[in-house]
Amino acid sequence: MRANYREQLDTISAELIEMSNLVGTAMALATQSLLDADISLAEQVINNDEAVDHLNQELEDKCFNVTALQQPVATDLRTTMSGLRISASLERMGDLAAHVAKQARLRYPNQSVPAELRATFARLGSLCQEVVAKVAAVIETRDVTLAADIRRYDDEIDRLHRELFTVVLSPTWSHGVEAAIDVTLLSRYYERFADHGVTISRRVIHIVTGEPYGEIDIDLL
Amino acid sequence: MRANYREQLDTISAELIEMSNLVGTAMALATQSLLDADISLAEQVINNDEAVDHLNQELEDKCFNVTALQQPVATDLRTTMSGLRISASLERMGDLAAHVAKQARLRYPNQSVPAELRATFARLGSLCQEVVAKVAAVIETRDVTLAADIRRYDDEIDRLHRELFTVVLSPTWSHGVEAAIDVTLLSRYYERFADHGVTISRRVIHIVTGEPYGEIDIDLL
Repeated sequence: MRANYREQLDTISAELIEMSNLVGTAMALATQSLLDADISLAEQVINNDEAVDHLNQELEDKCFNVTALQQPVATDLRTTMSGLRISASLERMGDLAAHVAKQARLRYPNQSVPAELRATFARLGSLCQEVVAKVAAVIETRDVTLAADIRRYDDEIDRLHRELFTVVLSPTWSHGVEAAIDVTLLSRYYERFADHGVTISRRVIHIVTGEPYGEIDIDLL
Repeated sequence: MRANYREQLDTISAELIEMSNLVGTAMALATQSLLDADISLAEQVINNDEAVDHLNQELEDKCFNVTALQQPVATDLRTTMSGLRISASLERMGDLAAHVAKQARLRYPNQSVPAELRATFARLGSLCQEVVAKVAAVIETRDVTLAADIRRYDDEIDRLHRELFTVVLSPTWSHGVEAAIDVTLLSRYYERFADHGVTISRRVIHIVTGEPYGEIDIDLL
């Protein structure tokens, strides 16, 4: 029974890592669909989001069942209870990747992003990859020092997000209101995606250390 | 011990209701600060968000402790585990109300919202009040048929959100890019706020019925 119990806990972590990989791939492909105005790729990302939703549901059931049947305590209980919230964050990250792809689809066959901002969005996309790679690593290894890396990527994403505001509001912006709104919303999707990465890393710190979530200061790591 | 246990579960519900009331008030005042360009009211909403964050932290600890110490099963375990997620949604709703207030503060002493859209934002604000009132009621009474009302308010908010897109993208829009972005982001905050209300009502249905969250279809109520 106890071996089975340990396996069940490991499965929760394994599925969270799988979800991380799925939403990482989703954001990479969504960014590509955006930059290439590739509608079939966009559709693929949108359709694949169901798999993330399904995994989230499965994880929710699993966390509930392990808690109900095994009555874990301490670190193990934090694993099942925080697992629920980590899974919710990953599910939302999948939604945000799908939002990027929907934006690409909405403007197809046109580009959502003006030529001079393509490099910024490519950078946002790759920073989100880095965030997700570290999220998966921190869940797998429980090496909480990785959270500081996630915070650094998030800071750069926040900086790019603010920079894009300045660009669309500059008097030299020549692409009109629609493109300005597209850029603003897209940028916000990337920014929120990375925020969830930070949240997850704080949740893992909570699992490992038992420190109250609200008092975790990643910058002190 | 069991009486104490029952009390602890009741406290979780009571605090969720208290949080609902706080975020409802926050969104009402944020909307007023937006429509009146009232910076001191906006500051108040922004500062008060800490109380919501604090309650969220307290609830998280409480849900964890009740689960660890009392080892609840069935409905009671769903109460503590879903309580965590409901609390997270409410905390996010508080953030969104604060975002509205921050927008009012950002443009002060100017108005963020052009005169002809003030009525729409007033309506969005009062619909969000209705959502929160029903959220509190559904948590308190566990009368899951109230979820259908929340869904109806959410549908109207979605409709207004889409309508605002049409307005800012219309060729007759005369307020420039900045105001268009302000309106779009603000509208999104209200829309997300209401979405969380729908999510919470589905979570309460899950607590009451045990039906898997992913399979709950409020429209069938």
